[in-house]
Amino acid sequence: MKPYKIALIPGDGIGPEVVAEGVKVLKAIEEVDKNISFSFTTFPWGCEYYLKYGKMMDEKALDLLKDYDAIYLGAVGYPGVPDHISLRDLLIKIRRGFDQYVNLRPVSLLHPDLTPLKAKSEKDIDMLVIRENSEGEYAGAGEWLFKGNPEEVVLQTGVFSRKGTERIIRYAYEEARKSNRTLTSISKGNALNYSHVFWDQLFEEIGMEYPDVETYSYLVDAASLYFVTQPERFGVVVTSNLFGDIVTDIGAGITGGLGLATGANINPEKSYPSMFEPVHGSAPDIAGKGACNPIAAIWSVSQMLDFFGLEDWGSAVLQVIREVLKDKESLTADLGGRATTEELGEYIIEKLIK
Amino acid sequence: MKPYKIALIPGDGIGPEVVAEGVKVLKAIEEVDKNISFSFTTFPWGCEYYLKYGKMMDEKALDLLKDYDAIYLGAVGYPGVPDHISLRDLLIKIRRGFDQYVNLRPVSLLHPDLTPLKAKSEKDIDMLVIRENSEGEYAGAGEWLFKGNPEEVVLQTGVFSRKGTERIIRYAYEEARKSNRTLTSISKGNALNYSHVFWDQLFEEIGMEYPDVETYSYLVDAASLYFVTQPERFGVVVTSNLFGDIVTDIGAGITGGLGLATGANINPEKSYPSMFEPVHGSAPDIAGKGACNPIAAIWSVSQMLDFFGLEDWGSAVLQVIREVLKDKESLTADLGGRATTEELGEYIIEKLIK
Ligand SMILES: CC(C)[C@H](C(=O)O)[C@@H](O)C(=O)O
Ligand SMILES: CC(C)[C@H](C(=O)O)[C@@H](O)C(=O)O
Repeated sequence: MKPYKIALIPGDGIGPEVVAEGVKVLKAIEEVDKNISFSFTTFPWGCEYYLKYGKMMDEKALDLLKDYDAIYLGAVGYPGVPDHISLRDLLIKIRRGFDQYVNLRPVSLLHPDLTPLKAKSEKDIDMLVIRENSEGEYAGAGEWLFKGNPEEVVLQTGVFSRKGTERIIRYAYEEARKSNRTLTSISKGNALNYSHVFWDQLFEEIGMEYPDVETYSYLVDAASLYFVTQPERFGVVVTSNLFGDIVTDIGAGITGGLGLATGANINPEKSYPSMFEPVHGSAPDIAGKGACNPIAAIWSVSQMLDFFGLEDWGSAVLQVIREVLKDKESLTADLGGRATTEELGEYIIEKLIK
Repeated sequence: MKPYKIALIPGDGIGPEVVAEGVKVLKAIEEVDKNISFSFTTFPWGCEYYLKYGKMMDEKALDLLKDYDAIYLGAVGYPGVPDHISLRDLLIKIRRGFDQYVNLRPVSLLHPDLTPLKAKSEKDIDMLVIRENSEGEYAGAGEWLFKGNPEEVVLQTGVFSRKGTERIIRYAYEEARKSNRTLTSISKGNALNYSHVFWDQLFEEIGMEYPDVETYSYLVDAASLYFVTQPERFGVVVTSNLFGDIVTDIGAGITGGLGLATGANINPEKSYPSMFEPVHGSAPDIAGKGACNPIAAIWSVSQMLDFFGLEDWGSAVLQVIREVLKDKESLTADLGGRATTEELGEYIIEKLIK
């Protein structure tokens, strides 16, 4: 049996610690399920690498990564390296270089105590946000004119192609149909009078092919409000790159914070590797202390298993996370417990393979 | 004594009903305070006007409005008129035409029962969001190329001028200094690699002149999360046009909804009239039934009074709103009460002038 080839980019800060726990989970599965095997290669890229070599990754990074089945990323970012370098030259470069145009971000409440919202429980907060991940507001196009002069003006251009917009919307319709859920588009056509009018038009146009899917279309401001007041409105959600970034952080806010938020960067055609990552940052202040919460990173592993077609294991991992969250003592400090990163990781594995 | 000249644009849906209550408040003040007088002129613009005349406002609208001290706007929007017309050709046209570059949006919890957040009270949610209101992502610049072809691509360009960015950031620093509060900038420099890198640079640059102001700079995604989990982090907030739109709706979400959210569109130089408006929409479904909540519109009146320099009255109106919110029975249905729009308006006036 051919192993799934996984490239590890542990990255900065707490990245290596959380990735280590995720890898242990995969190894534990391999141990008990003889039909599955994984191989791992670690790439030392990130901000420390940048401080040594002046670049976030090897020049040939995409070439080196291209034959892997998946990339497992920890976290990127470090004081002293400007974010627009550390992230554009690694995270965003991989997302775009490998045409990972689908960003799948579940927003699910895994335990009622975790939400800061009054009177909301697991059944109220259970959505899948599908974020456009390759272009749009993040295209990186712009101009900086008359730098330093009084008439200085800076332009930032969002790029919405028919191809790029259609494929993400279509992916979302398919997902809504498959999972038999409503589909909500989030956009801002009343102010972004080119790009989001186009988005809205395609959402409607493609919707003609999916008469069985119940759809809603909300302005991003209204949607952001509903995430807080009526999250039960949402099932599958599709939105642009920037709006996906924002609403999934609100999503993290209502489900217990970034320590519990995962994202899969998918190239559905499998022409390139897909990438799995916890959404949280590198948290340099607590790095190296065994204090960080590995749950988001382990949830990423669950998404990776689903993506490999190993859905039984994918669901099992998520189910164990749900169970573990009931046992406060076993959790890390951010969740009110006393466990170290490793202890929590081991506890999850124990429950998973018992 | 010269009256303050107020132009009324009641607009669509529930707009006329809520504006009527706000006007009654102003008239009641005029009645008891003989040093104050207001004059009102109503302009019939909005979507019904559009359906009759093919335009949202008279061509000479800005000319007709330019000598007023303030514009009091109800709500705009109507089924059958695309939002990007109804709003760009009225609301956004006035904001930009009159260089109302400061959008002042208080996010204050007026009664603890109103927040959907666990364990947050009035002292935790009390900020002033200062939104750039004249350019940025809302500049309306773009291109729609190869329409309808497979290679179709739509560009939307945000425009951040030094002048426009500097003046809003400076306004916010002044406000933070004056009110002795922290100042938080919300931006997205790690992805919007031109416009928001520029924003961050100016926030720092101008900050040199305000060493006494304690500052923070958050990414919009993180800030959106903190609005939900730790709103107490924020005092004065300054942000771009689009991000201001989004975070103030989250702000509305955590303070009781859009029925309680107000915004002032200010031209600080008073070269043009400023505009005061509840943030909510036109809610055509409940229009004309006396069912809508006039509090946001009356809070707008409080902002208008502050702007006129009548701060005693401005605070008094806000104080009465706080008090009224304690008495559930007296509120409209959206707040769990049984009063009509007019009854609630009258109750507020009664308390104000008693
Ligand atoms: C780090 C940053 C560039 C990134 C983004 O904005 O996409 C992050 O916030 C995320 O959501 O993955
Ligand atoms: C109606 C719309 C154009 C407007 C905006 O986006 O500015 C509204 O949402 C607001 O916040 O005032």
